[in-house]
Amino acid sequence: MTDHEPALAKSEAPSSERLARAALSRLMEPQDATGLALVRAAGPADALRIASGQVAFGPALQQEVTSLLVDSGAAPAAASLASALQRWKPRVGDLAPERDLATMQRLGGRLLVPGDRLWPAQLADLDLHEPLCLWWRGSELEFPVIQKAVAIVGSRDSTSYGSSVTGDFGYGLGQRGYTVVSGGAYGIDAHAHRGALAGGTNAMPTVAVMAGGVDRYYPAGNEDLLRAVANQGAVIAEVPPGSAPTRYRFLQRNRIIAALASVTVVVEARWRSGALNTAHHAESMGRVVAAVPGSIHSANSAGCHRLLRDGGAVCVTDVGEIVELAGASGEGLVGDKDTEASEHDGLTLEDLILLDALPLRSTSSVEKLAVVAGLSQNSVKAGLGRLGLLGLAVSVSGGWKRSGKKG
Amino acid sequence: MTDHEPALAKSEAPSSERLARAALSRLMEPQDATGLALVRAAGPADALRIASGQVAFGPALQQEVTSLLVDSGAAPAAASLASALQRWKPRVGDLAPERDLATMQRLGGRLLVPGDRLWPAQLADLDLHEPLCLWWRGSELEFPVIQKAVAIVGSRDSTSYGSSVTGDFGYGLGQRGYTVVSGGAYGIDAHAHRGALAGGTNAMPTVAVMAGGVDRYYPAGNEDLLRAVANQGAVIAEVPPGSAPTRYRFLQRNRIIAALASVTVVVEARWRSGALNTAHHAESMGRVVAAVPGSIHSANSAGCHRLLRDGGAVCVTDVGEIVELAGASGEGLVGDKDTEASEHDGLTLEDLILLDALPLRSTSSVEKLAVVAGLSQNSVKAGLGRLGLLGLAVSVSGGWKRSGKKG
Repeated sequence: MTDHEPALAKSEAPSSERLARAALSRLMEPQDATGLALVRAAGPADALRIASGQVAFGPALQQEVTSLLVDSGAAPAAASLASALQRWKPRVGDLAPERDLATMQRLGGRLLVPGDRLWPAQLADLDLHEPLCLWWRGSELEFPVIQKAVAIVGSRDSTSYGSSVTGDFGYGLGQRGYTVVSGGAYGIDAHAHRGALAGGTNAMPTVAVMAGGVDRYYPAGNEDLLRAVANQGAVIAEVPPGSAPTRYRFLQRNRIIAALASVTVVVEARWRSGALNTAHHAESMGRVVAAVPGSIHSANSAGCHRLLRDGGAVCVTDVGEIVELAGASGEGLVGDKDTEASEHDGLTLEDLILLDALPLRSTSSVEKLAVVAGLSQNSVKAGLGRLGLLGLAVSVSGGWKRSGKKG
Repeated sequence: MTDHEPALAKSEAPSSERLARAALSRLMEPQDATGLALVRAAGPADALRIASGQVAFGPALQQEVTSLLVDSGAAPAAASLASALQRWKPRVGDLAPERDLATMQRLGGRLLVPGDRLWPAQLADLDLHEPLCLWWRGSELEFPVIQKAVAIVGSRDSTSYGSSVTGDFGYGLGQRGYTVVSGGAYGIDAHAHRGALAGGTNAMPTVAVMAGGVDRYYPAGNEDLLRAVANQGAVIAEVPPGSAPTRYRFLQRNRIIAALASVTVVVEARWRSGALNTAHHAESMGRVVAAVPGSIHSANSAGCHRLLRDGGAVCVTDVGEIVELAGASGEGLVGDKDTEASEHDGLTLEDLILLDALPLRSTSSVEKLAVVAGLSQNSVKAGLGRLGLLGLAVSVSGGWKRSGKKG
């Protein structure tokens, strides 16, 4: 406990950047694009001064924020700092980052910010939407870097089938040294955490990502479970202590679950389910989505079958298949942003050609790809299999397209 | 009933081409590539004269057969007409196409050949592997062109889940005017036919494609069902009356099921299952393969999940989704033909035929095996040697039988 996280050592004063991020996480809702662009453009300390109205901003900063947002795909209309200030203003009076940090300290927790050695590097894949910070409540053990992580998500009202499958998967992944990430909810989430706690073999068997503040265990019925998760693993959130778990925050929270894990497994989900939202976050980040099949008569499997049918998800039936997917996609997930190049480094020339031939939006047939790429159909089939495992190609209703990190 | 199939009107004498195809279908095993290439190169009548040894063939014909086989992806080494003649010779004495046609007439059936108005046009997608003819046993109604057809296949030992899903699918597809194609076997096949018979709204609600001759309903336990299929739909085969349903013929039969349908639905299949063979035939033709998900704890769904995971199959959960796939894939299905084989456990086609011909309990002589298998005596001897080395055949007091290992 001496040198692993110097900036967080309890006796030291927090840096101004750390304090600023703590404050900003209360000022701005998760994934407030304008705010996140402001932080990127001005740095956290100045961003806080501007966002809290202490300092005015000039047209150059507005221009930079706009162009960051346009680059990230957001409409420039959303970029107005002036209107964002109006949005943030009502919360300025509530800012008390020292108090929030003291609360965390009292709970045995801490604050993590990007750049900390223990900051989960894979969150950088969220790009502009990387959380400002993580409020962490966990054991006094060293917080290990979450590297080998699998997310297990699904319905709150899981069936006995879903519950038993989830428990088995959580246990099996724990046994194999994976960190099981989930949302701490009833049903599938709870069984995933329980399985991982029972089977876990590493220092961080499971992580619950909360939609509200980690000072409170939510839902109340899972308090004992979440306490155990905090004792053996971690309960984390991007919102500060005292924040309510709103519906919006649940949806934003899902992107963190997806980003922490290399594979997101949906065990049971109804046709419309929050778990599908997590799956779509994972898919849009180029993470592997896996779905567990079930009876076509079970409404709780309808969302999984939808994922399988729409081509975004890989069908998994046991822990071995999940580990295989996690292994295939584990490289190039952690670390630097420019993964495109390194991700493609291991590809053969043929696979690179095939990747180039794959359309981004529409799909193409094996026959067409063979023509476009100038490869035999058998080579195309074999190559698609390899690219599929790497998360670079995906089959959608019989056709193939590119998936994963946009090039 | 007067003019719909003039060449088949019972009072007319069959054309020489028709008779030749009837005879050739007895002379050659299904998908005898050399034989099919010979028919394509010389036409059926001359092909029969050559194949039965009445007429010699010259180097030009051999050259054409070889190049047809090379074009279709077969090795040129397989193209020798001389060795094929040896294979066909033992059966020449059995040829009696008029008798076979008379048998069909007595059963209320008929023979269809390519070019007949009612010949299923989609079989042309099999290219060189299109059947020589179809022996058809059905109602006295006009045989409608099978256009909107879906294949439903799966395990013989279906679970109650698989049985109920299959019955629903068969019924629903029948209601929507689709012809349900299957193999007439126990389990999924039977439930598919039954559902289609119950729900069928067109003149051809269901078709059973047999591996053996249609003079006999096989398996015996499905006799009543198959009689009903023949009464309301059709029971068809590419092998002539009296042919035994050998394992080899089952595998070849599967290509016809796949070719007749625009979508092949696998409802339940174990990890290794004949239904997967049908699925692979469909896939290699560019047909859509669909698989029904089920419990990951059910061994009978493991094959379906395998198809879903390997990316070849689309996940379907109701009739509407199947109809959608059938609609989307109705046109332009002509596919690549490059992947055959490999299902055969590494055995050559000849060895597989020979293995099927070997009795399990009693023993058989080389001469008898040559007749049953349709191979030359030299090929039988050589094949027995190879099968013996593999532990699949054993010589017992001068005769040969299959040995311990499963066939």
